[in-house]
Amino acid sequence: MLRTHNCGELNINNINQEVILSGWLQKSRDLGGLTFIDLRDRYGITQLAFNMETQSQLCTQARKLGREYVLQIKGVVKERESKNIKIPTGDIEILVSEIEVLNKSKTPPFTIENNTDGGEEIRMKYRYLDLRRNPLKENLMLRNKVGFEVRSYLHNIDFIEIETPYLIKSTPEGARDFVVPSRMNPGTFYALPQSPQTFKQLLMVGGYDRYYQLVKCFRDEDLRADRQPEFTQIDCEMSFVEQDDILAIFEGMTKHLFAAIKNITLSDFPRLPYDEAMRLYGSDKPDIRFGMQFVELNDLTKNKGFNVFDAAELVVGISVPSCASYSRKQLDKLVKFVQRPQLGAKGLVYVKCNEDGSFKSSVDKFYTQDDLQAWANKMGAQAGDLLLILSGETAHTRNALNELRLEMGDRLNLRDNSVFAPLWVVDFPLLEWDEDNNRWHAMHHPFTAPKPEEMSLLETDPGKVHANAYDLVINGVEIGGGSIRIHNREVQEQMFKLLGFTETEAKEQFGFLMDAFEYGAPPHGGIALGFDRLVAMFGGSDSIRDYIAFPKNNSGQDVMISSPSEIADTQLDELSLTVKKTEK
Amino acid sequence: MLRTHNCGELNINNINQEVILSGWLQKSRDLGGLTFIDLRDRYGITQLAFNMETQSQLCTQARKLGREYVLQIKGVVKERESKNIKIPTGDIEILVSEIEVLNKSKTPPFTIENNTDGGEEIRMKYRYLDLRRNPLKENLMLRNKVGFEVRSYLHNIDFIEIETPYLIKSTPEGARDFVVPSRMNPGTFYALPQSPQTFKQLLMVGGYDRYYQLVKCFRDEDLRADRQPEFTQIDCEMSFVEQDDILAIFEGMTKHLFAAIKNITLSDFPRLPYDEAMRLYGSDKPDIRFGMQFVELNDLTKNKGFNVFDAAELVVGISVPSCASYSRKQLDKLVKFVQRPQLGAKGLVYVKCNEDGSFKSSVDKFYTQDDLQAWANKMGAQAGDLLLILSGETAHTRNALNELRLEMGDRLNLRDNSVFAPLWVVDFPLLEWDEDNNRWHAMHHPFTAPKPEEMSLLETDPGKVHANAYDLVINGVEIGGGSIRIHNREVQEQMFKLLGFTETEAKEQFGFLMDAFEYGAPPHGGIALGFDRLVAMFGGSDSIRDYIAFPKNNSGQDVMISSPSEIADTQLDELSLTVKKTEK
Repeated sequence: MLRTHNCGELNINNINQEVILSGWLQKSRDLGGLTFIDLRDRYGITQLAFNMETQSQLCTQARKLGREYVLQIKGVVKERESKNIKIPTGDIEILVSEIEVLNKSKTPPFTIENNTDGGEEIRMKYRYLDLRRNPLKENLMLRNKVGFEVRSYLHNIDFIEIETPYLIKSTPEGARDFVVPSRMNPGTFYALPQSPQTFKQLLMVGGYDRYYQLVKCFRDEDLRADRQPEFTQIDCEMSFVEQDDILAIFEGMTKHLFAAIKNITLSDFPRLPYDEAMRLYGSDKPDIRFGMQFVELNDLTKNKGFNVFDAAELVVGISVPSCASYSRKQLDKLVKFVQRPQLGAKGLVYVKCNEDGSFKSSVDKFYTQDDLQAWANKMGAQAGDLLLILSGETAHTRNALNELRLEMGDRLNLRDNSVFAPLWVVDFPLLEWDEDNNRWHAMHHPFTAPKPEEMSLLETDPGKVHANAYDLVINGVEIGGGSIRIHNREVQEQMFKLLGFTETEAKEQFGFLMDAFEYGAPPHGGIALGFDRLVAMFGGSDSIRDYIAFPKNNSGQDVMISSPSEIADTQLDELSLTVKKTEK
Repeated sequence: MLRTHNCGELNINNINQEVILSGWLQKSRDLGGLTFIDLRDRYGITQLAFNMETQSQLCTQARKLGREYVLQIKGVVKERESKNIKIPTGDIEILVSEIEVLNKSKTPPFTIENNTDGGEEIRMKYRYLDLRRNPLKENLMLRNKVGFEVRSYLHNIDFIEIETPYLIKSTPEGARDFVVPSRMNPGTFYALPQSPQTFKQLLMVGGYDRYYQLVKCFRDEDLRADRQPEFTQIDCEMSFVEQDDILAIFEGMTKHLFAAIKNITLSDFPRLPYDEAMRLYGSDKPDIRFGMQFVELNDLTKNKGFNVFDAAELVVGISVPSCASYSRKQLDKLVKFVQRPQLGAKGLVYVKCNEDGSFKSSVDKFYTQDDLQAWANKMGAQAGDLLLILSGETAHTRNALNELRLEMGDRLNLRDNSVFAPLWVVDFPLLEWDEDNNRWHAMHHPFTAPKPEEMSLLETDPGKVHANAYDLVINGVEIGGGSIRIHNREVQEQMFKLLGFTETEAKEQFGFLMDAFEYGAPPHGGIALGFDRLVAMFGGSDSIRDYIAFPKNNSGQDVMISSPSEIADTQLDELSLTVKKTEK
């Protein structure tokens, strides 16, 4: 080893030891007679000291070294005169006797500090330098730790990790596949998996009982800030289980992770049916760190002459604590917020519950103080609270009020990153109607089983059928989801038919799975958790990109290695492919 | 759970307990008044008993159930009359009170037994059924265990697992890449990684110090029996290390695995320089479970009138213990063996060291008994041994004798699958000359550093330069290899130039890495182990396919899911691609 110790471990117990350290020059300070260098490695920072009087040559050499030079030094551990209690090595410094420059460094294009001066683009191009910064290093260390704890937990309860293939088959259902042309079979393509769904189900048919895998998945979608074309999933499946068994195991895993990673003991997770979640929060991934649950006011608001409410399918509001004092200007901002095109609410009705027991609302013309009192009562409002009420078509109104609720949560600092409120959303509908294409979509995926007691509705009223499908939601973020699967050929065929597959299409794409169901497929179900998102949540961030060593940008490019790029004509020839010229 | 216990855990301590089991019907036997069913799951087999006299209806039902039906049964644990000491549950059986058929099964296309009647092709098509068989199940369980132990070992010594990207950049050097067309950047392609080599080096530049990853790698090669287009690698890299440090850590890991998996304590691994390995075994991956080292006989064989030896660059033999009694026919077979086109030896000289101290050889015309005695002495042969001697051009002769040595090892049962003989082959040449293309190739890869003390030869005599490159070889199989890397831009540029890259090509393909070397790249090195092969070795097999859940066949196809396959025209359009019609 080119060191006897790392830069994070020496302390008062090592005084007078001769040591060798290797690392990067973080910064140096010349204080006349003394020169100090902070030497950095993955483990920490150790201060090096040089004395101009007693070691003028060495000290002169040290003064010429630039930032990010790679040094190997030999020296003796000494107690510092002025200690730094902020770092573990702050009691000591190394009185250096030899320096070897292991490698030089050009001046980095941005500062390698916790807060850097580098913009996003330059940091992506020099990702290897950005990765030297503490925040990113801690993110990757966290990711490593979460991954290890996930594996330990599952390993200890008899789950086995089984690798499924990456070169699989393209199926047009769902998001777009990335495809891989086959040279040995010209004109044909593999696809990269969007998830190992069918393979894990086949493992259940194969008798493997408790499967897991931390696995890369791929989706060729137009990217948003929190999406990556390749992402990592904690993928799990179990046989001979019911929904409760799966929830218990993965609630256990989540609790284990919080204990191991954050030293937080979580209570049992509430379970909220999908319909309830929509009714109370207008979202299937509610942030329950704070209240402000929706209260429906249709019965109290109708037939008082206010046309907007009278015509509305839904009148629904939230009671915002201690905001009755909001000014006209503040209220106008909220109106603008809900009127943004993304939300598209027509207007916002407010009611101030004044401290003196009176009410002031934007609809005083139509409603008496008693009416408003009745609303306040139903909403459990206190004096000093502000009621915010939206109305209109149910789904749109709920969506807008959900955003407004989150906005108010932010304003009132009720969404604290160090507080964690997990829950299970359960009993999802099996199908959702796609207005644009006039067809049913699988809400989870086509392999999710209808609830057995609702099977008969599948023919008559498919929209009413629920599934034993569940999402794990933490702080308003969907961390994972899963379901009990179909394990019967006839039911799977019926499902494909409902989703608009012809018999030929179903057979061509998923015939192998339906065949497998005829050879003793056990009842089974599973879950997949977004590993990138889970780690980001532990890190207190929304951006998964900061928790991935080498992410792509929003155009799907890796600007560091300049990928994707053109390939040689010989490669195209071998693949029997031609690139079409596009007019631009 | 649809069970209270699994099929492998009940024993004499559970007598009279009421239990619920779920699993597959392995087989059933009707013995007149009694019917027995073996119920199987991942954990084992439990015997179910039905009594025709006392439970005629249930027993009649049981007799109708077919192989591989999925059953859930309720019953009471009873001590067996005739016990089966071969299985952990052999002391008990379940007196069944209720059966539920969870799923039926068609008759499987082959028997689900340790030795099946199914051919390779049908078992690949119904892989999920083949995976139910014990041998494959044990292989996947072994793989899971080895993977977990690898991670535990590395995690405990501060290695962190970091995921590198799968969508990277195509580089024409080395084996063929699989490419992935980019829809968002028409006409450009990602490539799937052949290894995360450059990324792990960038992680070292980023300061991560001890990196590992169990990672899928991809090579679009024409497949051989032991190759797969996607395979798994234990990929590792370390900074501030020298070769000895890396060998020590991964020798430690290998010993840990042997202890944990096979309960075998290995001694320290011998280290054999490449040149020695070639001289003593004619191979850079010698099987050292047995002796028969090569002995060169040039000095003892020349100028005695035997033209073949006189003209040969190399005369080299092995002494095969206790085979002096080989018949003419047996010897002829060996001659045929070395004359096969793959080996292409012209002939084989033998010397029998008779028990009476005399010698009988195929070259008695040219050599006296004293000559042969001298050969036998140099080769350390005993009375009763058989000397086998080849001659000719050095590389070809060594290769042929290597194969002959392995063949003799097989014949003498010296290659026992339960014995493990690891070693390090070290000091590989940096380059090898490619006769066909009249150019240098990197023996390991273009990122391997020349030995510092031989740097000056790089200009004058590059073929003489060695590298701190090493292979881990166990029982004649290359399990892994690695090297100390270049961490300096100038050396890397020089290397690319030697390998025939123009300056532009080098920059275009690996500019990012050479740029990174200018910002304080630490000295670093690493290793990659073939995980599939490592697991197969622990399983005592050569075939990695049996240790992969869903492997491809020799044409790169997954016949179960029918992949690769054609894709929709709309997909091709979105990717701006056309498939060229090939004449067939």
